[in-house]
Amino acid sequence: MAGPRPVSAAEIESLAIGAWILGTGGGGSPYQGLLNMRQLYRGGTVCRLLDPADLADDDAVAVVSYMGAPLVGQERLQDPAVIAQAVRMMEEHTGRRFRAVMPVEIGGGNAVVPFMVAALLDIPVVDADAMGRAFPEAQMTSFAIRDLQMYPLTLADVRDNAVIVARAASWKWMERLSRKVTTEVGSTAATCKAPRTGREVKECAILYTVSKAIRIGETVQAARRVHQDPIGAVLEAAGGVLLFRGKVQDVHRRTTEGFLRGTTTIEGLDEYKGQSFALAFQNEFAVGWLDGAPRVMTPDLICVMDTVAGDAIGTETLRYGQRVTVAALPAPPILLTPKGLEHVGPRAFGYDLEFRSVFG
Amino acid sequence: MAGPRPVSAAEIESLAIGAWILGTGGGGSPYQGLLNMRQLYRGGTVCRLLDPADLADDDAVAVVSYMGAPLVGQERLQDPAVIAQAVRMMEEHTGRRFRAVMPVEIGGGNAVVPFMVAALLDIPVVDADAMGRAFPEAQMTSFAIRDLQMYPLTLADVRDNAVIVARAASWKWMERLSRKVTTEVGSTAATCKAPRTGREVKECAILYTVSKAIRIGETVQAARRVHQDPIGAVLEAAGGVLLFRGKVQDVHRRTTEGFLRGTTTIEGLDEYKGQSFALAFQNEFAVGWLDGAPRVMTPDLICVMDTVAGDAIGTETLRYGQRVTVAALPAPPILLTPKGLEHVGPRAFGYDLEFRSVFG
Repeated sequence: MAGPRPVSAAEIESLAIGAWILGTGGGGSPYQGLLNMRQLYRGGTVCRLLDPADLADDDAVAVVSYMGAPLVGQERLQDPAVIAQAVRMMEEHTGRRFRAVMPVEIGGGNAVVPFMVAALLDIPVVDADAMGRAFPEAQMTSFAIRDLQMYPLTLADVRDNAVIVARAASWKWMERLSRKVTTEVGSTAATCKAPRTGREVKECAILYTVSKAIRIGETVQAARRVHQDPIGAVLEAAGGVLLFRGKVQDVHRRTTEGFLRGTTTIEGLDEYKGQSFALAFQNEFAVGWLDGAPRVMTPDLICVMDTVAGDAIGTETLRYGQRVTVAALPAPPILLTPKGLEHVGPRAFGYDLEFRSVFG
Repeated sequence: MAGPRPVSAAEIESLAIGAWILGTGGGGSPYQGLLNMRQLYRGGTVCRLLDPADLADDDAVAVVSYMGAPLVGQERLQDPAVIAQAVRMMEEHTGRRFRAVMPVEIGGGNAVVPFMVAALLDIPVVDADAMGRAFPEAQMTSFAIRDLQMYPLTLADVRDNAVIVARAASWKWMERLSRKVTTEVGSTAATCKAPRTGREVKECAILYTVSKAIRIGETVQAARRVHQDPIGAVLEAAGGVLLFRGKVQDVHRRTTEGFLRGTTTIEGLDEYKGQSFALAFQNEFAVGWLDGAPRVMTPDLICVMDTVAGDAIGTETLRYGQRVTVAALPAPPILLTPKGLEHVGPRAFGYDLEFRSVFG
């Protein structure tokens, strides 16, 4: 066991780029988290990344995220002290100290959140998450798919409100209760999910996704440096497929019930001229239609990127006129099992579609 | 110190009648709680009532209630185990055992709730509450008026959901957070409010209101036995005034945001013939208008009773054709202070009225 390895400031920059792509439109923009991390690193912080294989079976691991509607994150800035407060509250509630922290989702800003906790509480970040992407709801995790316990959850906001969901009758009830509280405090809240043992992480998490996000970010950066197509480089490196290229024509967006829901339509350009691509989202992109026919659907990762720069575009930053490329990346295998599809397939989002992967 | 005195089954019956009158339309019907207590007493339970003067300054006192919309209580029955669970959760959260339990409000079913806890956890009920009546919101207590700490609060439902509001930024935030969770679990939830010390109870609670409710109930029962007017007897005993007598003509009622809100109109009978009395309520009756002019308003206790039997009528049981009498009982002095009126005066309920007591 080599112990946790230091994560460089450059890697945090790459993480922000890669995780924003893996966020499939959600997880919140990583920009604010990145600003926080730059400041912490300037102050001397060096976070450490822990190989999940190095966790002891009975280690306690904090699972963190900002919960809410991504759009709100554009106005309500993130303070590392608030997410650290949620983690400390969990330690007080359970009476156990955490050995490490991990993201519930590797998508968007939520991939950066555990690094804030790591910096303030001086514990390493586990190289894993519970989605391999981002998803909007609490029961959409590998932990839920594997029927692990869903409580307790701690929740903190900027005003010194703090709520503990001590027990929940089901994963859906955990989602309902924590979502209502999140909505009431302004549709954004720092949460520490049900603690996991080292063994649960090793057996039920999606492993090495922090490294994966860093690698994807580095791929984008490397392609940019040599003036190559960053999207092509990412798709080659991550085994993705290009689905559409065009110009954003229309965006309908509403912040409702603690989520950002809506649709967008993209008008085809280049070889896609004359065609139209529609996307529906609930925080993350859920389904895409090419000329009215379903073309891609959750849990395949639906990524919308700036056609030139390769930066991901979130559901809260989509706007008229953007030149975008829609691509798909493969989902972690556990999401494609029958049980996985019950939790995160198109029907879990209200679409009466039989899941068909673009990867066959 | 004589120690807590036993409360007889007959006194529990009287309590239900008296607390329903003090509930000013809210607090929930005491009927289900009474059925629970009858069964517990048949099984050998004898609850004990503790004089607040006998509390040690550092005793821990549980403050309990069912929170929600009274109408829902007609469908969702109360299980003493659920409110006991909320109290046990508080003991686990704070790491302190409770010496005694008290109602947050002496109105309606919530006056009976601490007796369920007393029966299951074998602790006495303190002869006090924090309203001297019933009110719909968390910040409408003598504890809030006296600026005591508003957290933590524990909340349990029948499905094994359990939430702790560990911190709240203000009494209003405590109300908002706990209300949202209550609404989500079906607009009724068992709650254990911020624990109080014996000293806080002695200094900031409304004292001897459990005995007062029992006495009012006994007054009604005694009058009935000798075929006298029970309402007249109560008003004489409790220093109340009769405001109106008539027939319920109209009821508008909606369960919204965790409350039962609405209005009722009463057509005058006997000496009130030709006159009309309107009442507005949010769980409890808040304001009454005689022929369009404000006649009585919160925090004066606005009591609507069956004209013949003297039983209180709750905002959820009002219906067309009922022969009712509207009366006012005096409010506890702390509610009439400037700070008290900020919390529970007509403006706290959204009515732009300067408080004027019917008691001058």
